[in-house]
Amino acid sequence: MSLLVVGSVALDTIETPFGKTQEALGGSAIYFSCAASYFTDVSLVAVVGEDFPQEHIDLLERRGIDTSGLVKTSGHTFRWVGRYGFDLNEAETINTYLNVFEQFRPTLTERHREKEFIFLANIDPDLQKSVLHQIERPRFAASDTMNFWIERKNDSLKSLLKSIDVLVINEAEARQLAGEANIFRAARAILSFGPKSLIIKRGEYGSLTFHNHSVFVAPAYPLETVFDPTGAGDSFAGGLMGFLAKTRNFDTENIKRAVIFGSVMASFAVETFSLERLANLDEGEIFQRYRKLREITNFEDFED
Amino acid sequence: MSLLVVGSVALDTIETPFGKTQEALGGSAIYFSCAASYFTDVSLVAVVGEDFPQEHIDLLERRGIDTSGLVKTSGHTFRWVGRYGFDLNEAETINTYLNVFEQFRPTLTERHREKEFIFLANIDPDLQKSVLHQIERPRFAASDTMNFWIERKNDSLKSLLKSIDVLVINEAEARQLAGEANIFRAARAILSFGPKSLIIKRGEYGSLTFHNHSVFVAPAYPLETVFDPTGAGDSFAGGLMGFLAKTRNFDTENIKRAVIFGSVMASFAVETFSLERLANLDEGEIFQRYRKLREITNFEDFED
Repeated sequence: MSLLVVGSVALDTIETPFGKTQEALGGSAIYFSCAASYFTDVSLVAVVGEDFPQEHIDLLERRGIDTSGLVKTSGHTFRWVGRYGFDLNEAETINTYLNVFEQFRPTLTERHREKEFIFLANIDPDLQKSVLHQIERPRFAASDTMNFWIERKNDSLKSLLKSIDVLVINEAEARQLAGEANIFRAARAILSFGPKSLIIKRGEYGSLTFHNHSVFVAPAYPLETVFDPTGAGDSFAGGLMGFLAKTRNFDTENIKRAVIFGSVMASFAVETFSLERLANLDEGEIFQRYRKLREITNFEDFED
Repeated sequence: MSLLVVGSVALDTIETPFGKTQEALGGSAIYFSCAASYFTDVSLVAVVGEDFPQEHIDLLERRGIDTSGLVKTSGHTFRWVGRYGFDLNEAETINTYLNVFEQFRPTLTERHREKEFIFLANIDPDLQKSVLHQIERPRFAASDTMNFWIERKNDSLKSLLKSIDVLVINEAEARQLAGEANIFRAARAILSFGPKSLIIKRGEYGSLTFHNHSVFVAPAYPLETVFDPTGAGDSFAGGLMGFLAKTRNFDTENIKRAVIFGSVMASFAVETFSLERLANLDEGEIFQRYRKLREITNFEDFED
């Protein structure tokens, strides 16, 4: 019972070149907790409206996720309407209805304050800070953010970064946050803001991890069918943090393993809409993809 | 004396966010042969005009490159004028003056027909075929191409691919050639056209190699200073083919090594304009980058 995520729960309406879905279960806290649930116990802190279907809560509970922090409040659940083009690399937001999410002010229960592994998904950095302050003895805290907060709450965000173990953001956000086009220079600038480590997500190109003065270049899992990229980043973070919470080992080799489990979980998330695939895995599939990633990236020394 | 390259020799005028250069030595055959020269003997077949500076030929000869196939003909040398924006990912062509390159019809000498390792840089696929037919006993032939030939000489290109061991193209070209957005599906389609293997170059994201029914995901070398990306792809091919010509071993592990040496040579090419860095390396620098790439990508198995 060691990992806590604070983030969004959403009903997503999405169109991709391959199909459409209406009001499907989504949101950062959902993808994260579902991915992490294969590695460790997870508690979710989020808000939904009175219209939130019970079947979704049932699904989370079948995955063993602690939903006692999922507050149901009067009003409608957060909704996102988006679309992806053929290259699937960037979501186009058609509409965002914040609804009850607009008034989300997470207050942790005593049991949740005792958690040691914390993921602060992409929400207002002032709320991220407030959550982190409520944690009694944080052992390892990770956070995400987005362009909106980089532009509008830059000071709050930078203040949060001083207390964070690992910032997990995408490549465009990293460049924007650093004000630097070269991604390795951008990484150096961001690390100077305070986070101990940095992971830059590059979509189908994998990720870069900056940890203990070293860099780790990880691939995305090769997929011939990417159906819907929604939730990939949060599933990545879920695999990463789930494995770290399970192993409680932050040396460089174990961080690499955690990143690879992140890639693996992201790959399952994008194969279907919503959690259809991600919520229905067995351990064997997860281990198989880990070993496949090792096979397709590792290479031998040359002989002089 | 086993590797032959047929391609362009150019005088490049380039503007990047970091500086400008005027009529600097460039062209696919130049970058390729310079990169390959650290691994094996290379012969270059290309054409220049009467205005081509002798100092450039001297530079190639200092690198031990056989320039007996560099034909000087009446007229001006091929010139390219281009520009890169801040993300450095795509060159904008401002002007192309083909000059003597327009009438380039490579005829190999007897000594050049005996070469076994052949790189057909990006030229008209009919010329690539003509060169390959002149080779007596090709052992391993690689080729590059570009959007222009994919659009205008599609049949010739596909006919060439049936005789090729490895096609080395960039990601956008792969998608265009296959008519498929997903890069792994695109690779499968291209392999069905005939080449035994396929390498897809992804710029700063590294490369994908499809060989013997396996895939190898290789990184680009991490650089905080990318000065001018011109020639990266041809330098990659030079490192790849140079190492293969030296080792004459096409098993999967050795192909991986060759690809990594490709990444290494590309990384030196982009650190300065023209060949300033690429022509002045020592073996130690090359081996050091190989080992660094291994360190930043290889990871261990997990323990159950």
